[in-house]
Amino acid sequence: MTEKTITTLTEFKWPQGFASDGVHAGLRKERKDMGWLYSQVPAQAAGCYTTNQFQAAPTALTKKTINVKHELQAMVMNSANANSCTGEQGEKDAATMQALAAEKLGIAPELVGVASTGLIGANLPMDIVKAGIAQMELTQNTAVTEAILTTDLHPKTITVTCEVGGQTVTISGFCKGSGMIHPKMATMLGFVTSDANIAGTQLQALLSAEVDSTFNQITVDGDTSTNDMVVVMANGLAKNPELTPDQADYSTFATALHQVLAFLAQAIAADGEGATKLVEANVKGAANGADGQKVAKTIVGSNLLKAAIFGEDANWGRVMSAIGQTDAQVDIHHVFVWLNGLALVENSRSAAFDEAEMKKAMQAEKIVLDVDLNSGAATGQAWGCDLTYKYVQINASYRN
Amino acid sequence: MTEKTITTLTEFKWPQGFASDGVHAGLRKERKDMGWLYSQVPAQAAGCYTTNQFQAAPTALTKKTINVKHELQAMVMNSANANSCTGEQGEKDAATMQALAAEKLGIAPELVGVASTGLIGANLPMDIVKAGIAQMELTQNTAVTEAILTTDLHPKTITVTCEVGGQTVTISGFCKGSGMIHPKMATMLGFVTSDANIAGTQLQALLSAEVDSTFNQITVDGDTSTNDMVVVMANGLAKNPELTPDQADYSTFATALHQVLAFLAQAIAADGEGATKLVEANVKGAANGADGQKVAKTIVGSNLLKAAIFGEDANWGRVMSAIGQTDAQVDIHHVFVWLNGLALVENSRSAAFDEAEMKKAMQAEKIVLDVDLNSGAATGQAWGCDLTYKYVQINASYRN
Repeated sequence: MTEKTITTLTEFKWPQGFASDGVHAGLRKERKDMGWLYSQVPAQAAGCYTTNQFQAAPTALTKKTINVKHELQAMVMNSANANSCTGEQGEKDAATMQALAAEKLGIAPELVGVASTGLIGANLPMDIVKAGIAQMELTQNTAVTEAILTTDLHPKTITVTCEVGGQTVTISGFCKGSGMIHPKMATMLGFVTSDANIAGTQLQALLSAEVDSTFNQITVDGDTSTNDMVVVMANGLAKNPELTPDQADYSTFATALHQVLAFLAQAIAADGEGATKLVEANVKGAANGADGQKVAKTIVGSNLLKAAIFGEDANWGRVMSAIGQTDAQVDIHHVFVWLNGLALVENSRSAAFDEAEMKKAMQAEKIVLDVDLNSGAATGQAWGCDLTYKYVQINASYRN
Repeated sequence: MTEKTITTLTEFKWPQGFASDGVHAGLRKERKDMGWLYSQVPAQAAGCYTTNQFQAAPTALTKKTINVKHELQAMVMNSANANSCTGEQGEKDAATMQALAAEKLGIAPELVGVASTGLIGANLPMDIVKAGIAQMELTQNTAVTEAILTTDLHPKTITVTCEVGGQTVTISGFCKGSGMIHPKMATMLGFVTSDANIAGTQLQALLSAEVDSTFNQITVDGDTSTNDMVVVMANGLAKNPELTPDQADYSTFATALHQVLAFLAQAIAADGEGATKLVEANVKGAANGADGQKVAKTIVGSNLLKAAIFGEDANWGRVMSAIGQTDAQVDIHHVFVWLNGLALVENSRSAAFDEAEMKKAMQAEKIVLDVDLNSGAATGQAWGCDLTYKYVQINASYRN
């Protein structure tokens, strides 16, 4: 078995058979606020959803729809309004949105998923939603990647290709997410399209395994949204032999999918509300994988450390305090920490770093904290961002 | 058994037999930075300590000291430097601080507790510590309540009295704490003195039970410090019959102690770094007490809700999102929330509140969120504060 190349394209493009659109329906003042995604043939589908007990109506509907036979031919989505905590009316509105999109596309409603994001607790203005769907066409543009944004500063997209069973398979993903980011099973809205030939249940198994080390390892503010979902659609038009775990190229596809999910997850952390820096924690020497993941996520989740990183202050005691807050196995006298390659902590004490050199390292847009717990051979990784004045400003008046 | 009155004094005073002092030793630029507390006879003592794995040297030493026979005659403390993550030198320094105080007081080192708070990771400058202890006297002033402060804006003190077995017992507490506040077993530094006659082990049982509903239910930023401790000293000079659970006045003393701990815990939340408002969550209708406590603490811990409260924005969806993040039993269609008495959420949907009236209610310095989970008869309570620009500013350059 030869190792196959996975190529990241410089520009986003849709896999074979996918079309989409994004429009300004009127839910927001000026920016695009509705979009859809369509495959010319029904696609195999998989999803992961928020674990928040108040799951929003569109999230619940999409989960129910996908779970029937892991098939989907379209997704319709809107920003500005989360259709969450909206009671029975909210459930009806999500179903109407599904039906309207299905009608315009000429497919069964059971093949349409629905996603909403934005303010919690307001009912969807259905006249605007209806007008928005009426406007939408089937195009090759990427307007849908803008239409799902809320406080995000820019769309987050990626396309990778790989060879599978002699065919070129394309995987394209996009997502939104900036605040209320602390996923437990999935995060905010993420959509991955592919022309790969793979069964829906197999796709679900792959996705469920991969979100744990990607979307579930990012945090912006420790709050888990009511609307989180990641959906993958694979329509088989690449005509590769069906992907199963015993196939030679299965691992190539799995790795390519992981790359897409990891890229999107990190892009959300980097575009966290008010963020000026992406923070990555790489933990090694953990007793087991769960410990490594837990320590990494606690580090990037510490408000105090996030504020210090914003201030470019090498306050390493806050890294130690975060590690010590977990119940992970830690050799408490032999922890090591490096910041962008410079030694910060040696044997649980301050390394003899040069303040000026460290300050300079902290001016980078990406801060990488490498941590050695000296307690085993497992690792863990997580991504977050700094805590800034802008985060407070954005969230002090989100409803206005 | 008649219900006994518990009186909160308008001014702080020390219980019988206690003396103290606070001085400027030079660990800080201008403010007082060292203090002590002394009882003319050995006092029965109890403590609760941080669960952070990197327990600071003074915290570990005090725990070890108290655990020998639950006796203490003095405490010596400093601010500005936490003596945490300081290795063997840190352990030696804490022991030296204990020995120097004991020597000057003419008592055994085994009767002296040590507490430090401030920056993690720097060694204590022992010449300054030594000079500070040399300066200290035994007075009735309250300078020690200032000497332990870091980013706190003001000392947090309380004195209550109650009748126990025909004698007047005084309980006086003070504490510090403003950032890195998310206690698990105890918080920051809290000291309670009393002239009550009660065995140390009994005092320990009382304290351990009471911290769960007081100090453990506050959060400023979700970070658990390495130095947390609450210590109670009772010297018996009130000459009440020894307090045991089968005694008529035991519950009076327990209630009075609870009042002191609850007051101090709330005072820390209200004086949270950069805070402009105290936030209290009162949960009822919980399936059990743990669920109630968990939901209350998750609500006051939500960064998003904290920022909205700073902005006086009635973003009730964030209360729902916080509740839903927990695994507590929730009747998801029948949750009710009130803000300072005004209905905010009814049956998990927006109540028909008047925006202007709600905005006015949010201008108060204390925001009380009453929550009904409709899932049982248990309750829970927690305290926090808003998230402000000032919090970010303070923590962006804490080391400087």
